[in-house]
Amino acid sequence: MANKKAQGPSPIIKGRIARFRRAMKKHGIAAYLVTKPMDYFHLTGFTGEDSAVLVMAKDVHVISDGRFDEALNQECPWLTRWMRKGLINDQIAKTCKALKIKTLAVQGDSLTMADQAELTKLNKSTKLKSGPSINSDMRILKDATELAIMRKAIRNAEDAFRSTCASIEPGQTEIEVAARLEYEMKKRGASGPSFSTISAVGANAALPHAHPGRRKIKKGSALLLDWGARVDNYCSDLTRVVFLGSIPRKIGEVYGIVLEAQERAIKAIRPGRRMCDIDAVARGFITEAGYGEAFNHGLGHGLGLDVHEAPSLSWRSDQKLAAGMLVTVEPGIYLPGIGGVRIEDDVLVTPNGHRVLSRLSKRIEDAVI
Amino acid sequence: MANKKAQGPSPIIKGRIARFRRAMKKHGIAAYLVTKPMDYFHLTGFTGEDSAVLVMAKDVHVISDGRFDEALNQECPWLTRWMRKGLINDQIAKTCKALKIKTLAVQGDSLTMADQAELTKLNKSTKLKSGPSINSDMRILKDATELAIMRKAIRNAEDAFRSTCASIEPGQTEIEVAARLEYEMKKRGASGPSFSTISAVGANAALPHAHPGRRKIKKGSALLLDWGARVDNYCSDLTRVVFLGSIPRKIGEVYGIVLEAQERAIKAIRPGRRMCDIDAVARGFITEAGYGEAFNHGLGHGLGLDVHEAPSLSWRSDQKLAAGMLVTVEPGIYLPGIGGVRIEDDVLVTPNGHRVLSRLSKRIEDAVI
Repeated sequence: MANKKAQGPSPIIKGRIARFRRAMKKHGIAAYLVTKPMDYFHLTGFTGEDSAVLVMAKDVHVISDGRFDEALNQECPWLTRWMRKGLINDQIAKTCKALKIKTLAVQGDSLTMADQAELTKLNKSTKLKSGPSINSDMRILKDATELAIMRKAIRNAEDAFRSTCASIEPGQTEIEVAARLEYEMKKRGASGPSFSTISAVGANAALPHAHPGRRKIKKGSALLLDWGARVDNYCSDLTRVVFLGSIPRKIGEVYGIVLEAQERAIKAIRPGRRMCDIDAVARGFITEAGYGEAFNHGLGHGLGLDVHEAPSLSWRSDQKLAAGMLVTVEPGIYLPGIGGVRIEDDVLVTPNGHRVLSRLSKRIEDAVI
Repeated sequence: MANKKAQGPSPIIKGRIARFRRAMKKHGIAAYLVTKPMDYFHLTGFTGEDSAVLVMAKDVHVISDGRFDEALNQECPWLTRWMRKGLINDQIAKTCKALKIKTLAVQGDSLTMADQAELTKLNKSTKLKSGPSINSDMRILKDATELAIMRKAIRNAEDAFRSTCASIEPGQTEIEVAARLEYEMKKRGASGPSFSTISAVGANAALPHAHPGRRKIKKGSALLLDWGARVDNYCSDLTRVVFLGSIPRKIGEVYGIVLEAQERAIKAIRPGRRMCDIDAVARGFITEAGYGEAFNHGLGHGLGLDVHEAPSLSWRSDQKLAAGMLVTVEPGIYLPGIGGVRIEDDVLVTPNGHRVLSRLSKRIEDAVI
C-alpha cells in the first residue's frame, strides 16, 4: 500500500538525490536499494532503523514499519511508503514485484548471503546485483550544513574533555574516566560517544585499541584518551595524552616526536596531494627519529556519519585529497611495556589547504593536569 | 604461518567445541567458519575483533592479526593461528587453500554478498555455503558459568538504577538521566550499556523505541527507563517507570494492567510451554482490559551475549521453552499523546518452572521518587 505525501524534499536532499540518480544513470542502474541506515539518512534525512530506501528514476520509495510513521511524517513525507507488517525482506520482495523491477542494485557490503538467498527465493522476477558505492562516494565531501554539525560534535567532545580533565584524580580507574567523558558528552547533547571511549593508563596505552579496565591512575601517570561525540548523527574523534602532575621521561620524549610528526602532516594537507604522501610526511619523521616500527597503523581516516569512513589517510591509498574532505590526523608511537602517545585532530581540506577544526591545546605543558 | 601452542581449552570450551563438532557431523560439514564475534567468543573464549574461527574435525583455527597476539596467548593459546598482514578475506582464502577445504560452511546472516564475491574470486577451489545456525542454537541454553555472569550484569544495572533514581530531579533532561545511568553502570564495571539507554518522559514514552532528547522531567512526570549493562560480554535488559512525586491518573491505571499482565506471563513460564502461549497470557489480559492494540510488540526475547538473541518470546513462535533459556518478559501499553508503561524483567527457565533473576521492586508505590 503505497501512500505518498505532497511536500517535497529540502534543496540539500533534492541535490543529493539528483547526484545519486546521475551516478545510477552512469552505471546503467534503474533501481538501487540503500540498506545502510547512515547512507539512507544522508540521502533522504530519514532516521528510522530497520528500513530501506529504494531509488528509481521517478520516485524514491521507503520500506519501513509503523514505529517510524511519525519520523517519516516529520523528516520525509515525500517518500513513497511501503509499510511492512511482516519481515523487511518480505516487503522488499513485494515492493520489487509491484514495481516490476528486473534488476535491483544493492549494497553488497551490507546485504548478507542470507538476505540474498531469501530475497531471491521470495521473488524470482528481480535479479540482485551488487551496485557501486555511490553513497560512500557522495559522503566523502562534506557540505556547509554537515560541517556546521560536525563542528558541534567536535566542540561537544572538547568541552566534555575539559570538564572531565578537571575531575581526574589519582586513584580513579580507566573505566571511571571513560564513563565520565561519555557522561559529559551526553549531558551536552551527544546521542552517545561516536565509539567506545579509549582510556589507557601507563603501559596499557601501548595497545592502540586498549579496552578501559580497572587499572588505576596514579601521580606521574600518563593517560591516553581517544574519544568522540555523536551529535545529530555526525561524529567527532579526538585523542590527547594527559599527565598527572609530572611527565614520564620517555613518554615526554616521544610526545614531542608525535606532535611534530602530526603538525608536519597537517601542514602538508591540501587538495591534489595523495593520501600516501601525507602519511609519509608523518611516518618519515617518526622513522627518522627511530620509532618507525612503533607507529603501526595508518595516519588517519575520513569522519562523518560514521566514525571511520572514506577516505583512508594511509600509505595504502593513492587517492587524492579534495576540498570538502574531513579527515583525522593521528600519528602514534607505542612502546610495549612502557606506554604510548597518540595525538589526533579533525582536519578539513579547504580549496587552498586545510583547516584544523579541533582546538584543544597540544602543548605538553598544557597536558599536565 | 600456522603457530600452535600446547595448552588446551578449558572443560567448558572443550564441551562447546565437542557439541559444535557433533552438529557439524550431523549436517555433513567438514569445515565451518564462524565470523560473528559473540559466536566465536562463546565457542572459544577469544575476545578479539575482526577475526574468524574455523572449526574442522581435528583442529580449531583462528584467523586474526597482531593486535590480538596477547589476547590469543591469554585466552586460547590452543587455537591454530593464521595471523594476517593484509585484509581478513585474503587470509581466509589463503587458509582455506592451505587446508585444502572443498566446501566451507559460513554464517550466511553475517557474511555479506561482497565478502562472498571476494572470497570466491580469491580462491576458486573452496565453495562457500550458508551453514545451519549451530552457534545460535547452542547459545540459547545458558550454563552455570554464564548465569553467574548474567546475574552480575543484572545486579550492575539494578545498582546503577537505584543510584540514578536517587539523583533524578525536576529540570533534568531525558538525556541527562540516560547519561547518568550509563555512567553508573560503567563506574560499576560494565564495559558499556548493553544498548543505547531509553529515557522517555511523558508522551515520549508512547514510542517503544524513543530516543532520549532535551525534553525536561517535571514534577508529576512519568519517566520510562529501559536500560541494561554489558558485563564480561553478557547483557542485562530491564525496564521500569518512575514517577516524580505523583502518579498521573491514566498512566497509573495502565501501570496496574501491565504489571498484572507481566506477572501472569511470568507465572506461566515453565519448560515445554510454547513461546506464543506465554505471549498470549500477557496479551490476553491486556486485550481484555481494552488495550490490546496498545501492546504493539512481542512479549520478550532471549538475552545473553547479545541483547536480543534466540528465542523470540512472541506470538510468532511456537518454539518450546526449555530449562536454561533466559528471556525478558516486557509487556507494554502505549497511548499516543499521553504516555506509555513497560515493565521488564529477566527470567530464567528452570527445570520446574522459572526464576526471576532481576529484583527491582515493581510496586507502584515504590516507583514514586
